[in-house]
Amino acid sequence: MIKMEALGRQILVEFYDCNESKINDVVFIEQSLIQATKASFASIISHNFHKFSPHGVSGVVVIAESHVAIHTWPEYRYAAVDIFTCGESIDPWIIQDRLKDLLGSENVSSMEMKRGMFRVAEGQKLLFKPDQKLDQQN
Amino acid sequence: MIKMEALGRQILVEFYDCNESKINDVVFIEQSLIQATKASFASIISHNFHKFSPHGVSGVVVIAESHVAIHTWPEYRYAAVDIFTCGESIDPWIIQDRLKDLLGSENVSSMEMKRGMFRVAEGQKLLFKPDQKLDQQN
Repeated sequence: MIKMEALGRQILVEFYDCNESKINDVVFIEQSLIQATKASFASIISHNFHKFSPHGVSGVVVIAESHVAIHTWPEYRYAAVDIFTCGESIDPWIIQDRLKDLLGSENVSSMEMKRGMFRVAEGQKLLFKPDQKLDQQN
Repeated sequence: MIKMEALGRQILVEFYDCNESKINDVVFIEQSLIQATKASFASIISHNFHKFSPHGVSGVVVIAESHVAIHTWPEYRYAAVDIFTCGESIDPWIIQDRLKDLLGSENVSSMEMKRGMFRVAEGQKLLFKPDQKLDQQN
């Protein structure tokens, strides 16, 4: 029997009604994303954040398992967050939960997407890790 | 009359059946994302790419209008791309079209999401640019 499996999971999070001053603070946002990412035990490769004038922050944490990105609109008390992970070793929802608390969001809308869908035979699995032996070609 | 408007647009692109060697070449991938982003006239703030061993590339171009991110699985000839833009001055589909050609993808699945939905009164608009005068609070 053939089934569909995904290489990656992506959570698109709409954080409404955030703490306006916190989501306008580039240092706080960078520390929050790093802290939330570490809580999931993801492996951080790099992080890069920017403050816009007069308001707004953008930033990305690149992880071995993909990335966590944020864009904030303090004037609307809104932050858009993407949490993209692959593999089964980390839980992206840990990152979402931690960020909800840190940003003080009182109204959260989240959706999980599956990325990279492939057919695999029953009893076989997609290989998420580059150093796994590739014993099956889709 | 009240209508819904979005702060951002995000295109999630599944590039299947890509050129395997091209999507395993970190220099080629970085140059391709920069070239595609410039074609849309977005303003590049930073770019950061990584090669995984033995295969796979991850990278992000942060733009003033949000970001473009890629993760490749050469062993599956697959690349996941996210194109997140705000404002009305750039067209994210230009980036998608250019990347399709550069990655040699023969099977593309794309979906556009609206991010940051707010109610606005008729005749008024959301303000995308931080330096616009904020003359309306939602």
